[in-house]
Formats: sequence, C-alpha cells, structure tokens
Amino acid sequence: MAETSETISATLAEELWQTAGEMAEAARAAILPHFRAEGLGADNKLSEGFDPVTVADRAAEKAMREVLAARRPMDAILGEEYGREAGESGLTWVLDPIDGTRGFLAGTPTWGVLIALSDASGPVLGVIDQPYTSERFEGGFGRAVWSGPLGTRPLVARAARPLSEAILFTTFPEVGTEAEAEAFRRVAAQARLTRYGMDCYAYALLAAGQIDLVIEAGLQAYDIQAPIAVIEAAGGLVTDWQGGKVHEGGQVLAAANAEIHAAALALLNG
Amino acid sequence: MAETSETISATLAEELWQTAGEMAEAARAAILPHFRAEGLGADNKLSEGFDPVTVADRAAEKAMREVLAARRPMDAILGEEYGREAGESGLTWVLDPIDGTRGFLAGTPTWGVLIALSDASGPVLGVIDQPYTSERFEGGFGRAVWSGPLGTRPLVARAARPLSEAILFTTFPEVGTEAEAEAFRRVAAQARLTRYGMDCYAYALLAAGQIDLVIEAGLQAYDIQAPIAVIEAAGGLVTDWQGGKVHEGGQVLAAANAEIHAAALALLNG
Repeated sequence: MAETSETISATLAEELWQTAGEMAEAARAAILPHFRAEGLGADNKLSEGFDPVTVADRAAEKAMREVLAARRPMDAILGEEYGREAGESGLTWVLDPIDGTRGFLAGTPTWGVLIALSDASGPVLGVIDQPYTSERFEGGFGRAVWSGPLGTRPLVARAARPLSEAILFTTFPEVGTEAEAEAFRRVAAQARLTRYGMDCYAYALLAAGQIDLVIEAGLQAYDIQAPIAVIEAAGGLVTDWQGGKVHEGGQVLAAANAEIHAAALALLNG
Repeated sequence: MAETSETISATLAEELWQTAGEMAEAARAAILPHFRAEGLGADNKLSEGFDPVTVADRAAEKAMREVLAARRPMDAILGEEYGREAGESGLTWVLDPIDGTRGFLAGTPTWGVLIALSDASGPVLGVIDQPYTSERFEGGFGRAVWSGPLGTRPLVARAARPLSEAILFTTFPEVGTEAEAEAFRRVAAQARLTRYGMDCYAYALLAAGQIDLVIEAGLQAYDIQAPIAVIEAAGGLVTDWQGGKVHEGGQVLAAANAEIHAAALALLNG
C-alpha cells in the first residue's frame, strides 16, 4: 500500500528521520574534503577534468543513495546528479547534494545539502544542511528545529510585519527573465532590505525567523522540496507566484506568514 | 619615539598579536548573545530604541577598548562607534566592531569584526573575525593564517589566472554611484563569476585563496584597514581605483595578485 503523510506512524516517522540524519552526515563527510581545497595550494582539477564542486556533488549523492539502499530500499529517489530510481512505498527522496555550487566554488558558507521526502501530495520532511558551519535545519512530522554553533533551537518563522520592515532575499540580482526581474523589483522597492547570494541558506534563515521573504525563479523540484518542508514546519508558506503549489519547481515565493505572503503576491502580479 | 613597522621588535609584535587576539575574543563574547536573538521569539528592541545590531556593535567596541586600556594605553584608537582617541606610540588601532550590519540583521554569517593596527604608513596588522563560524583571518608581522572549522591553514592568495576564469565579489549590486556601477560592470562582464552580499567576508575569502577580486566604493578607513593587512600578508594587494593607497577609504580594488589587479584596474578606468 502506498504511504501518505496521513498513514505514517510515529515509529515510521522516527525511522525516516534517522535515515535523513544518516544521509546528511554521509553527505558532510563526502563534501568537506573538497570545500576550499584550492586554498591548500594543490591543483584540484582531477584527471577526469572535473572541478572540486562536481566531484563533491557526485560523491555526496552516491553516499546518500548508499544510506537509502541499506535502510529504505523500498523508497523512490530523485537526485540532481543521478536522476530517478523507482520505488514501491509511495515515498520519494528528493536530493540536491550541493545546492549553490557557485557559492561553493567561491568558498562561501551559503550552499547546502538538500534532502526532502515526498508523498503524492508533496514534501513531508525536509533537511537543509550546511556542512562547513555544522548547521542543520529540519522540518516535518512534527519536528521543526535547527542546530549549529548556538546549540539547538526551535524553528519559528517570523510574525507578520509590514513589507516596509521586511527583509527579502534572492540569489541573483537578475532573478530570471526580464519580466521576472521586474516583478521582483516591485517587491524589493517596498522592502526594508534586499540581499543577494545566499542560495538555499536564505530559506533556512526564513524558517529560523531571521528574514521575511525569499523570491526566486527557474528552480527545480530538488531545489525547493526540502525548503518547503522546513519552512512549512516553521509556520511559513511556500508557493509559486500565483499562490499555487510549487514542489515541482518554477517561480518561488517563500514567506514567513500569510500576511507578508499576500502582500508580496499582490506586487508580483501587480 | 613613534613606532613604525620597521622598528617593531619580535617581542613587541608578539605582544600586539596577543592584544589583537584578546580583542577579537572580547568582541565575540559581546556580540554573539545578540546574533539571531530574534529567532528566540523575544522582542529585542530595547527600551532605548536600539536594534540588536546597534547594541552588539557598541558592546563589542567597548569590550575591545577595555582590552586596549589594560594592555596598550599608549596607542591611539579610531573606532566606528566611538571615534578617535589620541595616543603616544605612533600606533593606532582601527576598529569596526561589526562590519556588515545589514548581513547581521538578516542572520547571515558574512559580517565580521575588523581589527587593524596602523603606523604612519598604513595598516601593519589585521584581523577579520567571524564569531558565529569561529573563523579568524590574521595577517601582519610575518603572520598569515586562518583558523576555523577546517583547522588552521596558511593564508595564500591565488596565483594569476585570466579574468575570464576569475571570481569577483562586491557587497551591493548597485556598488556606488551610477558611474562607479558602470565601471564595476565592465569588470564583471569579463569575469567568470560575480557574487554579492558578503561584506568583509569577501576580503577574507580573497586572502584565503578562494576568489580573485573584490571591488567596492564608498568605504571608510575602518572598513578596509584590516582587509588590507590580511590580504597583503597573503600576497595580494589592495589599492584605490587609480592604483594608489586606500587605507583612508574610498573606492577599493582588492586583488589576489598583480596580474589580475592590473587587468581589473584597466577595465575600471576603461
């Protein structure tokens, strides 16, 4: 029988969280030897012609798939690097081993490992992990926590405030097409502060109650499924620019609460 | 007698490094309780009307000034928050307790504590410290090291590569005036990758061999003196957009090596 979030027992939820945690640890171990490796003075272009981020990306997805083969062989997988693998449980692990490869290449600590678990309705569990800073943001099945240098804290998205007091993030100033950039600028013009360049880390900051909005375009399913689960667990919401479901990717509007979501949605379509 | 870098003995250099290290630790302790404090759910607007970053900024500069009062009362101080204090040694500590207050407000780990020591010629010692990630980048008096989650490593700026393979950073896409932004875009158009939003962390990445160029405008002396000392110790160079000294602030071009510096300088003035 296919499983959905309604039929997942507490025991199964715990098993799924243990699996996700093991995957995140495996990805950290696979990636960290390649991060800032160029600073060691070595030539890190391997003989096959791959750069460090490509090597780390593939090694991390392989390591996560090995955990799944051992613990959850009945689940399907959709990974950025190695594509789809069918399953029988009705559950799919959606993996982006390094979200923010350009940040990784530049040595910033703003990329992350994205792990989501989806049923037919969309993501029900999500992990955003930052291996270098040892930060992990987890949401789903009643869990909403982040851990890192400051210890472990609940994930609680911000309460409503006017757009004029809100902090907005996107990864690239150009956002997407010219029309998408124009829509973005209508929101940015009203916000207190607009910042760039954070990749998936911006979604983690939103879930952790630090910022109000993230607006992006052209995302893939594996870019957004983990952020959706983490942000929803923290009380926020993530939709497309029409207010609909966005777990298959596209134009993303992530908001800390319904009020700021409505304000941004109106401007994106204004 | 006024001290200059030429007359500073190994013993004095060690004392100055100990002082700088103690200041960085004091700043960390003063700042961290205020970072991401809003995520705790408390209302952090204090009764005086200051936001968390202003409170942290002032507490950190006070803590650093207390270290100097105890250890180096003969030195002058120039601080972002509390201004100038005269000294008799010919040495001036130049302090920016939180460089990147907007990043701090948004919860990103890309702000930093900047500590520089200058003689009449400019900065001779610099520290860029990131309290949340426990990273510290230090340069001067023969020292060029960074420490953090990956351990302690030498600071070595990148070897020369063509601009088409280079990574360029600036904090704000708008850069400065429209003419400054246009000059910036001439360099960005030739670079492999342009990224935004890192504040002083971009200079640390340059010194650590991760990126090639940082270009900014409108900086203050306390924004740039620590990066100058750290980058020069790593083998890089920092000038204004005419190739002259920039420790008093203004338009900044920081480069990993002389070749990429020359290439960027030509385009800025092209």
